[in-house]
Parts: sequence; C-alpha cells; structure tokens
Amino acid sequence: MAEDDPPRLGVGMIGYAFMGAAHSQAWRNAPRFFDLPLRPELTVLGGRSEGAARAAARRLGWADVETDWKALIERDDVDVVDICTPGDTHAEIAIAALAAGKHVLCEKPLANSVAEAEAMAAAAAQAATRGVLAMVGFTYRRVPAIELARRMVADGRIGQIRQIRAQYLQDWLADPQAPLSWRLDKQRAGSGALGDIGAHIVDLAQFISGEVLTSVGGVLTTFVSERPVADSFAGLHGRGGTGRGPVTVDDAAIFLARLSGGGIATFEATRFAWGRKNAIRLELNGTTGSLAFDFEDMNVLNYFDATLAPVEAGFRRIVVTEPDHPYLSAWWPAGHGLGYEHAFTHQAVDLVGAIAAGRQPEPSFADGLQIQRVLDAVERSSTAGGAWVALPTAAGS
Amino acid sequence: MAEDDPPRLGVGMIGYAFMGAAHSQAWRNAPRFFDLPLRPELTVLGGRSEGAARAAARRLGWADVETDWKALIERDDVDVVDICTPGDTHAEIAIAALAAGKHVLCEKPLANSVAEAEAMAAAAAQAATRGVLAMVGFTYRRVPAIELARRMVADGRIGQIRQIRAQYLQDWLADPQAPLSWRLDKQRAGSGALGDIGAHIVDLAQFISGEVLTSVGGVLTTFVSERPVADSFAGLHGRGGTGRGPVTVDDAAIFLARLSGGGIATFEATRFAWGRKNAIRLELNGTTGSLAFDFEDMNVLNYFDATLAPVEAGFRRIVVTEPDHPYLSAWWPAGHGLGYEHAFTHQAVDLVGAIAAGRQPEPSFADGLQIQRVLDAVERSSTAGGAWVALPTAAGS
Amino acid sequence: MAEDDPPRLGVGMIGYAFMGAAHSQAWRNAPRFFDLPLRPELTVLGGRSEGAARAAARRLGWADVETDWKALIERDDVDVVDICTPGDTHAEIAIAALAAGKHVLCEKPLANSVAEAEAMAAAAAQAATRGVLAMVGFTYRRVPAIELARRMVADGRIGQIRQIRAQYLQDWLADPQAPLSWRLDKQRAGSGALGDIGAHIVDLAQFISGEVLTSVGGVLTTFVSERPVADSFAGLHGRGGTGRGPVTVDDAAIFLARLSGGGIATFEATRFAWGRKNAIRLELNGTTGSLAFDFEDMNVLNYFDATLAPVEAGFRRIVVTEPDHPYLSAWWPAGHGLGYEHAFTHQAVDLVGAIAAGRQPEPSFADGLQIQRVLDAVERSSTAGGAWVALPTAAGS
Amino acid sequence: MAEDDPPRLGVGMIGYAFMGAAHSQAWRNAPRFFDLPLRPELTVLGGRSEGAARAAARRLGWADVETDWKALIERDDVDVVDICTPGDTHAEIAIAALAAGKHVLCEKPLANSVAEAEAMAAAAAQAATRGVLAMVGFTYRRVPAIELARRMVADGRIGQIRQIRAQYLQDWLADPQAPLSWRLDKQRAGSGALGDIGAHIVDLAQFISGEVLTSVGGVLTTFVSERPVADSFAGLHGRGGTGRGPVTVDDAAIFLARLSGGGIATFEATRFAWGRKNAIRLELNGTTGSLAFDFEDMNVLNYFDATLAPVEAGFRRIVVTEPDHPYLSAWWPAGHGLGYEHAFTHQAVDLVGAIAAGRQPEPSFADGLQIQRVLDAVERSSTAGGAWVALPTAAGS
Repeated sequence: MAEDDPPRLGVGMIGYAFMGAAHSQAWRNAPRFFDLPLRPELTVLGGRSEGAARAAARRLGWADVETDWKALIERDDVDVVDICTPGDTHAEIAIAALAAGKHVLCEKPLANSVAEAEAMAAAAAQAATRGVLAMVGFTYRRVPAIELARRMVADGRIGQIRQIRAQYLQDWLADPQAPLSWRLDKQRAGSGALGDIGAHIVDLAQFISGEVLTSVGGVLTTFVSERPVADSFAGLHGRGGTGRGPVTVDDAAIFLARLSGGGIATFEATRFAWGRKNAIRLELNGTTGSLAFDFEDMNVLNYFDATLAPVEAGFRRIVVTEPDHPYLSAWWPAGHGLGYEHAFTHQAVDLVGAIAAGRQPEPSFADGLQIQRVLDAVERSSTAGGAWVALPTAAGS
Repeated sequence: MAEDDPPRLGVGMIGYAFMGAAHSQAWRNAPRFFDLPLRPELTVLGGRSEGAARAAARRLGWADVETDWKALIERDDVDVVDICTPGDTHAEIAIAALAAGKHVLCEKPLANSVAEAEAMAAAAAQAATRGVLAMVGFTYRRVPAIELARRMVADGRIGQIRQIRAQYLQDWLADPQAPLSWRLDKQRAGSGALGDIGAHIVDLAQFISGEVLTSVGGVLTTFVSERPVADSFAGLHGRGGTGRGPVTVDDAAIFLARLSGGGIATFEATRFAWGRKNAIRLELNGTTGSLAFDFEDMNVLNYFDATLAPVEAGFRRIVVTEPDHPYLSAWWPAGHGLGYEHAFTHQAVDLVGAIAAGRQPEPSFADGLQIQRVLDAVERSSTAGGAWVALPTAAGS
Repeated sequence: MAEDDPPRLGVGMIGYAFMGAAHSQAWRNAPRFFDLPLRPELTVLGGRSEGAARAAARRLGWADVETDWKALIERDDVDVVDICTPGDTHAEIAIAALAAGKHVLCEKPLANSVAEAEAMAAAAAQAATRGVLAMVGFTYRRVPAIELARRMVADGRIGQIRQIRAQYLQDWLADPQAPLSWRLDKQRAGSGALGDIGAHIVDLAQFISGEVLTSVGGVLTTFVSERPVADSFAGLHGRGGTGRGPVTVDDAAIFLARLSGGGIATFEATRFAWGRKNAIRLELNGTTGSLAFDFEDMNVLNYFDATLAPVEAGFRRIVVTEPDHPYLSAWWPAGHGLGYEHAFTHQAVDLVGAIAAGRQPEPSFADGLQIQRVLDAVERSSTAGGAWVALPTAAGS
Repeated sequence: MAEDDPPRLGVGMIGYAFMGAAHSQAWRNAPRFFDLPLRPELTVLGGRSEGAARAAARRLGWADVETDWKALIERDDVDVVDICTPGDTHAEIAIAALAAGKHVLCEKPLANSVAEAEAMAAAAAQAATRGVLAMVGFTYRRVPAIELARRMVADGRIGQIRQIRAQYLQDWLADPQAPLSWRLDKQRAGSGALGDIGAHIVDLAQFISGEVLTSVGGVLTTFVSERPVADSFAGLHGRGGTGRGPVTVDDAAIFLARLSGGGIATFEATRFAWGRKNAIRLELNGTTGSLAFDFEDMNVLNYFDATLAPVEAGFRRIVVTEPDHPYLSAWWPAGHGLGYEHAFTHQAVDLVGAIAAGRQPEPSFADGLQIQRVLDAVERSSTAGGAWVALPTAAGS
C-alpha cells in the first residue's frame, strides 16, 4: 500500500452465489476505474460450508472466510456488511450488523414481509443517528441509461409524467422442467416474479419519475405448480434431479397503479416470456416528451422531445457511452459499451462515496420498505380478486 | 363491362371522413388486385350535406349521392351498406339496412352501448336466416402479419397461451391544444381511447389467440378535461377555433384480463404516448414460443420458437411480404411492403367472398357485441375503483 | 365528368407486368388523394398479345388496348406515353413518342447503353423546346422519407457530405433454382443487379446529396451462370420449366466512388443477400450530422444531429407520416404508414404537376443519361480489373 | 496462495493507456470467472515515466514497474510480455521478447509495415520451435457473438460464402477540432482508420468466413488535414492545446475484395460517421443463409436460415448470452449481457490455455502478417488510383 492510498474500507460479504459473484466483481473493480475516497478491501466472505466458502473466496478474491455470519459482523476489520443471501435472512443479519455499528448493503427485495422491512427501516433510521449507514441494492438504478433518464425527467425534459409502462420479462421458468430453487420457495424468497424482478421495475419507475405509487391493483398467477428438485445450480439454471416439489410463489405478476403526480402505470413481471431473457422495459410519457429503455439494449436510452417540430421529431437513440454520461468517464471510449455487471460497480462506488461523506446512500432501507409495501399491496389486491389497494403516502409511511 | 365480368355488387357507403376514405380505397382497389366472385361498384355515397357529399363522391369515386341514409338503404342498386359514421348512429342504420335486406359492413366499435350492440347482433342473427350478412370492421385483423400470427397460434407454433401484452399507443391528443372532435364526445363516440383503439387490441388479442377474455379490471383516465373547439378537420387533426369545450371520454385506458384458456393479459390504450403514432403492439407468450408485432413495423412478425436449441434460438423477424403469406400473392414482390390502407382492401375482399358464398363473414355482429361487453366491463370496473368484472362465457352470450 | 373537373390527361401505357401494375395503381390513385391540375385518364394499354392485353386492361382499369405501340403513340387521345417495358425497347419507343408530341414517362434504367441514352436525352432536349416533356422513373425518390432526407441535406442539416454508403440488397436469385427471366438476359435488360437496382441507389445517393459521382471503380460478378427456363411468372417470381439457359448479366455489383463535393461512397447491389428482401439502405455522413434510411422500414428516416450536446445526441427515428412531411397531407393520420406503391402515385402527381405547369419534370432524361454513364463506367471498371473510371463532369455531359 | 492453486504465469505489460487498461482488466478478471490451467499474475508494468507508470500500476493492479522495456523482458518473473504500445514499437519489443524466451501478446495491427511484420512472423516461427508462443490481439474475435458466427459458418449453416459487407464506423474525429494524437501520426501508427479499425474487420471477415482475401482495390482519404495539438488525453479523446499539426494518416478507407472461396466483399473503415460510435457491422451472405452482427448490439447475432420455408423464414435475433454460447457459461444468467472489455478477458483465457497446452494461440503472428499484407495492398491500390492488387495465397505467404 502506497503512502497516498485512501484509507481502507473492510467489506464482509455474506452469500456467494449469483449476487455474491456480482458484488465481488464490483468491490474488485470499483477502485480500478474510479477515484474512491476509501479503498474497499475484500476482507471476509461468509458462508455456512467452510469448504465451499473457501473455494468461493479464492475464486472471488476474498481474503478470509467465516462460517458464522454473526462472527463476520463482529470483526473489527469489517466496516461494511454486504448481504447477498435469500430474502428470509435479510432482516436478522441487517439489523444485527447495524447494531454492531457496520454499514450495510442489502440485496433487494429488502425483506420477505412488510413487518421485517419495517423493523429493518427502523434499525437503519436508528443507526443513521450514529453515523451507520444502510442501503438496499436496487442495482439497476446504476445502469447509466437509467440514471440519465432520471436526470432528464428531473430536468423537465419530458414534463409532467402521465403514463408509465414497466415490464420485466424473463423466460428461465417457461420450461416446466426447469427445476426448483430457493427463488421458487415462498418461505425463502417471499414471493416469485413479483419480489424478484417486479420489485426492480417498481423501484425504477419511481426512481426515474421521482414519484411514488399511491394505489395498485393486480393479479399474481402460477402457471407451473410443481417442478423437479434440482441437484445443482449454475447461475439461475439448475440441473434437475429426480424428485419433484411444489412451486409456492407467483410465476407472473401484472398490476396497474396510480402515481403520486396523477399519472397511471402498468407493470408486468414474468419469468415465462419465451425469448425475453432479461428485458427490463420502461416507457414514460410526459406532457412534453417520452423516454424508453430496454435492458436488452442496455447502453441505449430513447428520448422523444415533443417540443421539436413534428416534421423532425422522433425517438432519439442516445448511445449512453459518452464521457459526459453518468459513470462513463471512468470506462472506455464512446461506443465501447458496458455490461450487466458494471451497475454493481457503480453501486459500490456510490456507497463508498456516501460512507466517506457520511451521507445517506440511496436507495435507503426506508425506500426498500416503501417498495415492500407496494409488493405487499399487489399481493393483497390479487388475493382480494384484483380490487385496488391504497398505499400510505410518503408523509404517512 | 365485359361478358365474363363477375356480377356486380352495389355498395352504398354512409360517411366519408377518415374511415370513408379508407373504405372507398378498399372498394376501388379490391378488384384491381384480387380475383373476386362479385364486382364491387361504388354506387352511392350518403352524407347529410349534398354539396360536401357530391365533392366527396367525385373525389372518392362514388357514382351518386344520397343525403338521407334511409333513402340510400332502400335503393335497389345497393346490395351492401357500409357504415362509416360515428358510433351513435351505427345501431339505427345497421338494423334498418339489415331489415331492408342489405348486407352490412359496420365500422367498429359496433355501437356505443351493450344494449345497442345486443339489438344489432339480434338483428344480424335474424337477417342471417334470410341470407343477409353483417360484419363489423375490425380491420387490423387483415394486416397480413396479424393473420399470419393467428395461423401460427392455430397451428400450435407457440403452444398454449400464457400471457398477452397488448398496447395501442398514439399521441395525437398529447398536446392539450389539440382540438375537440366527435371522438372526444361521449354522446357521439361512446368512449375515448377505450372504444376507439382499445377495442382493436381486445379484438386482436382474442383473434390471434383464439380465446376470449373472461374477466377484466382496469382504470380509465382523462388527462385533459377541456380543449379548443375545432373549426375544421383533416384526418384526425383539427384546426382549433376560439371556443373551448369539455372532453367527456377517457384519454387512456389500462386494464388486466384473464383469458379463457387460463392465461393473463395486460391492455393499454392511449392517445397520450408522445412519439408513438399508431403503435399497436402485441406480444403473446405460449408454452412453446412467443409472437410479437408492432404496427410501426407492420410488415413484420417476430416469432420465437422455444423448441429450438437455446444456442440458436432467437426472435425471428419474418418480413411478411412473401407470396405465401396471407393476402400477399395479390400484391408486389417480396420486400415491397404494404401500408395502412391495404388491410381495408383485404377486408373488402373477405366480405365479398363471404357474400358470394353465402357464408357468415368474420368478425360478426356477435363478435362485435362480445367486444362491446368487454369494453363495458372495463368501464364498470373503472367506475367501481378497479374491482374486476366477470364476462359472460361464450355459451352465455 | 363535372363542370369543374380539371382537363383530362390521356395516358397510354406500354407493358403491364410488375411495373405496369404499379403505374396503373398510381394513375388510378393520384386523383383520389391529391388535387391535380389535370385529370389522368387510363386511356389505352399497349401489349403485343391482344387477349392478354385486354385481360390486363380490364384488371388494371384501362379503357382500351393497342397491340402496336406505334399506333398507341399516335392516338389523339393520348397525351402521355408511359413506358413499362424491358430496357431494350425504351429508346425506340421514347424517341418516337416524343417525336409524336407525347410527354413520356420511361421506366429506369433509361436505356441499355449509353448510346441509346444519349439519343433519348437528345430527343428529350429537342422535344422540350416544343413543350413536350420527358421523365425517367426513379420512383424511390418519391418515398417520403427519401424526399425528406433530400430536403434536410439541402437545408444544411448534416453539413457537407463526406461519406455515403448505399446498398440495395435482395435475395430473389439466391436460390440457384430460381428461373430465368428477361431481367437475367443482357440483351433485354442491359445489365443485372447493376442496372436493375444499382441504378436506384446511384440515383438516390445523388438525389439526396445534391452531388454527382465523378469517378467509380468496381466489380460485377455472376454467382449462378445457368438457370431453369421459366414457364410462367408472377411478380419477380417465375415457376420453373424443364430447360436451362445461361445467365448473361451480373448477379451482384460492388463499387466505390468519389463525389463531386469531395466525399467518397460505397455501393452494393445484389440479389443474393439471403433474408434481405428489398433493403435499400442509405447512410450519409456529413460534417455536422448523418442520415440513415432502410426501405425495410420505409416510413422512417434516422437523423443524427451532431450539433447537439453529446450527452443527448442520438439517431432520431423520424416516423415520416406527419401531415407536414412530403406527400403525407394527402394520406392517412400520423403513424398509418404508406407502402411500396405510394411512391408511384407520388411520381404520377409530380409528373402531372410538371406537365400542367410546362415545367421540366425530374429526374429528366439527362439525369437518366448521367446515371447510365455511371453504370457504364462501373462495367468498364469491372472489365478492366477494377481500375477506376472517371466520369464527365456536369458541364461536360 | 493455496496448495492447489495452478502455477503462476507472470505477465509483464508495456504501455498503460486505453489498451493497457483493457488488458489489465482482462488479466485481473480471467481467473475470477474461468478455470485456468495457469494463474496470471500482474507482475510488472512497463512505462517510460516512472511516476506515471507507478500511478498506473497502482490503479491497474500491477505489482511492480520498469521504465526500460528491455529490463522488463529480461525479468525472470515474467513469462508473458503483453505489448500495448503504438505500432512503431511492436517489432523491436516483440522480437526481443521472443528472443528472451517470453511468450508474447502483441496488440494489433501487428506492425506498421509489411517488412516489420515479416520479421516478427519469422521470429515467432523460430520461437515456436523452442515452445515460445506469440499471439496478436485481434480481440473482437472473442466477442461471443463473433465466435458463434464463426462456428455457424464452419458448421455449414449458411453454406458457401458469396458476399461479405464489413464496416467499422466511428465518429470521434468527425469534429475537426478533435486534437491530434499518436493515432493520427503515420510514423507512430502506420496508418489511420485503415490499420486501427480496418484491420479488425479484415480479421473478422476472414475469421468468420474461414477464407482469406485474394485481391483488393480501394481508396484512402483524409478529410481534415490539420488539427489542434492535444495537451492531455482521456481514452481516445484529447483536450486541445493551442498549436496545430498535420494529420498524416487516412481518415477513412473504403475497399473491395475478392475472397479465396470465390465471393466478393466490401469494406469500410471510418472515424467520420457521425452518430456511429463503435459500429462494427458484419454481414455474410452464403448459399443457404446469412449472418449479421453489429457491435452496437454486441450481445446479438442475427441469423437467416434460407432452408426454412419462406413463410416462416426471417432473421433470427439470437441473444448470445446462453450458457451454451461461447465463453458464456463463466458469466451471468441469460440476458445479462457482456460489455466491451469482456472480449479481452476471453483473449487472456485463450492465451493462457494455449500456453499451458503448448499450443499455437490464434491469431498468430503469421495471421497478423497476412492482415498487414492486406492493409499494405489497400494502401498501394489507393496510391495507384484504385487499381486492384493481388495478395499472395496462403501457400505463397
């Protein structure tokens, strides 16, 4: 370590599957491309099985392992606890870590229930008074085109929002032989498509628009109620075993919403849209323009400026790789696009910056709780046959 | 007329605005490109103002005019009455024309209320027993890519339908200074975006899937409640006058639905989506594949075949201009695409064929009634705060 | 005919295959959608076989037929001779028609040789002194997006042209079993891909840029040298017979060029690009912007404005269906796109306007000759192993 | 280091600008995502200025620095020399490194002249006899969609190649105020667009097709002959100073080619195509299908299978992110796309694999030489006014 290196920031990460790999890449990459006020160190990886954890740590670059997450959060060399485990463990770990004085980055959705999320938000609010910070990982906010969209809305480039259409389409469960995983177990995951991917588009719609959902009505459905039990997994894809077990979560969620600014919105989250692999599609129509994004073309933001003469107006395909675009000056020349994992690096950069500045990182646990309430309201609407459910306003949350 | 020309089919058309121009083009073009069993003749055009009607008739190619539609439907040289007037007049004209023994082509939506539509469907059923036929003009069914989609679903190419997303996005009312027209007057038009364009996507979703909607829940909204009164119109676009008047219809409609085969669907109809001019977007996800269509690229159908190996699967962009594609052998070589108006020609071709064969043309007035019931159910759901409304099953209609 | 109808303009058309059908549609449609100063009348159709000509005339709407084109051009009721025959007949017919005092619309390419084209251009120049006008049918100029592109270049919206890339890709000959037609016979067609479709992109590149090619170097190639003899044809597609015959034209032509303004260009014309049905692709890069067009999306023009800040610059997808776009106020509302045939209607409209005004229509026979010289230079370059051939400058033509 | 870690492979990299940053990312990432037979170690970074080199080493993760490249290549802890300097230094460094028994990865183009490239290829051939291996960095070969394209051609999925169109379009020099850099200095860079980006599309066209160019004819041009001198650089983009200097390389290169299998091809490389940031576009038309790629959509390969019935044929948009796609099993779930830098990681993986196996990595220096000959032939053709230049056949190289 050189004299003028920034102070270290010890990170302890719990969980090392898909999300753990993405977070590790972020912690490794952030200081290679960005000037950070603190130097993240991959201090310790938490996992229940020591052998597997050690292998993962070596592969992913972590210096040490702990098999007990409680030991991990107590370590003096850990400043940040990064929670990459299934949703049923978030509340306990996060609350304990905050109590131990550790900053927390918690994967989304914040929790599996509103009650848990409320407890977490309360713990975060209390911790903040001690300078201990908490953030929830709605990582897609850090896709440069998404952040550019948010800025353009904030700058009034599309006026007042009238309509949003938000879709998150995947197909990895469309095959009824795709095996069970914890993501299909209500106990572990809380919900299915709704919480796993629907949560993202709720967050993105609110983030970009700067508004919140005030009421929702919708339907959850499960197309395939029983699946093979998996023997092993690679990414989202398991290799099937011989037994079969029940799917206890939703396969798809569709819902409508009203926005705090008076607009309306449609949402759809599904893992059954054959041919759509990770299609996060967002369209916002305002009084003076529109924005459109599709993660299948993640380095692009489409913008329609309705203040131009109709003869030359059209959706403008902005390739979001210019040095002046969000996060881009750290990367490659224009046109040399980024990939999925870069948003995680940007998340790490933003979190490190907030910690160094003693500033609340966004999205906060309160934001995560608000989204949890939206998800909960959609589930209650579905259970009630689609009748709309009002959400507490910001003041009342 | 040559010896071997097919027998004439006298057409009397009522109304000569946007739809009247499109229908006229269809009647003129159909025999130029297709071998028809009957020879359509543009016999008489109906319009209240004689001067305007005569000018329109000359421009559009009609041999004569009538200022009283009742006189028109009684003429011996009229075999088909083609109704291109606003929705509030459909029921009276259509029922009278059928009673007069004339085949009827009626623009969509069939009527402004379920009661009217029921009366029309009953009249059509009665007329059918006398060999007098009625058809409602859901013209987009005749876009070749749409008909190809229907055939592919019928052939099992995407399996059982799980999800449909259907959008009809326009922007011609997004400007609050766009003037009033009869389309914004509930008395004349019945509803706004819902009936004008939402009706099309309900029809298309059902037509392609071969299923019907069994329940719906949704919301209508009006963004701009008062507009300038127009002095004149060209197409959909009026030139504003000085007065102002109320908008009494919905500007946008969003709704969810369940399908008779167990699937779910989302619908959105809006005239406020800046930058989307006439974007009819349909996506169907089945158990073994998907189909996607966007009228902004109307000569294309996208097909994902999930039975292929993942390594080479992908949405296939079928340019629907091959001689073997629906309707295409009559037109130009491959790649020389069709436009908006061609679907009207195909509609005329199909109607003439049905009349010559004494076969019920599709969509029938019963089909139009069923769609009217869907629209009505959406309105009732919206009025009731989004609670879902069940639709009668086919047997019960 | 009404009192206030405009004076008639008798049209005699020779040839009634693909191009004849497209021209007939144009003559029929032009007065239905546009206010014309003269009223085109489909007076007489010329064809060698009386029976086939009569059947075509009835189908296409022509009042009479002539089996001798010389009789057709002498008729008093013919004001315009519209030549839709293969290229080897253009010169004789056009020169005779002009001599007979008839305006001429001649399909492209103007002729099969520079010598013929020179004679035609000379005849046209001479006829013009008598008020008799001639036009060559580079119809794609009349696609609204193309005309919009020309206007934008003329208005300086992309600055000085630096590079053009122009491709015309089809695939109807990629199958070696696709049969012979006159288009594959050098005697009849003059050349293959080069003259049939390469001529269009040469014209379009020059038309949009407002510049001319000053030198060219290129290669012609024939991939399939022998094909089945066709028994019958529908559009471009023949049904094969039993014999086989030689292909005597090029299957593909690729060439480079210098432009009069100092820029450079690449051209490619092929009928062997599997999957590209009628892809006319044009991209122009100027000092301050770019334009891009693809006929597979013919109602769209893409525009990049380099004077915008990079953070919000992007190719703008202009849907060319607004009332203010070229030719569009006559047609349908925004977003209700046009098809292939509409450009022929626009061509007829422009020709009728020029005739009524006694104004030289564009493109003239001199323009057609200039393009013929380009095609000839490409052929000579290919024969000479690719060495570049200079073209006469405008002054020297 | 753990007991069972693979043996280390010490890397010494020379140069740390744009390419150096990309290569560093590759060396760091390769073992995090792939199981490698050797463990790359970022041993030493070479740069002339010690301070700048040390700062770069710290940022990029290199353990040590050397200011004299000759010292670097002699170090015992260096097994691979990775050359990321401008082209005028490649030959000297590479030949010396090979002589010192170090494997070499050399950025493209291999050299600034055929003579240098010949010397390098000879040195590599000689070194290979001693088990010392050399590879040239045509990195885009490792974009998964490109490798998939190669496999599909090799598997006969598009038949015999008839036509290729290859474009590499950028716009970072379209602004005449963009400052000079070594890339615009013939002495340093060898050539401009031709060698910098044209080299890539020559390599990719040959790599995917499995053929070589046998003759070429083309034109180089320089649009802006004088530019500001830059004071500093970030990526490709400099910040201008006050002086001005000459551009001594080509701004754009366009050329035609014949392929060893009998096909023809067009090539275009330019940095003046406003709005195209890094558009590497490749289309291959074979006897039974086509492939199309655009780096602006780098995770996608489009495939047209002409053996399907025309009624359902179409370009298939393969999203190349499936576990079965090249390199993809190491990364994220389907639809979670890769970015520009990942191809460098794949290059490192392939090189490490080849070194461990004692197998010649591809592309070899002989391949680099062959491309250098193509570039040289294009330059000679341009100098000779476009006359074609034949290339030695493989046997004769």
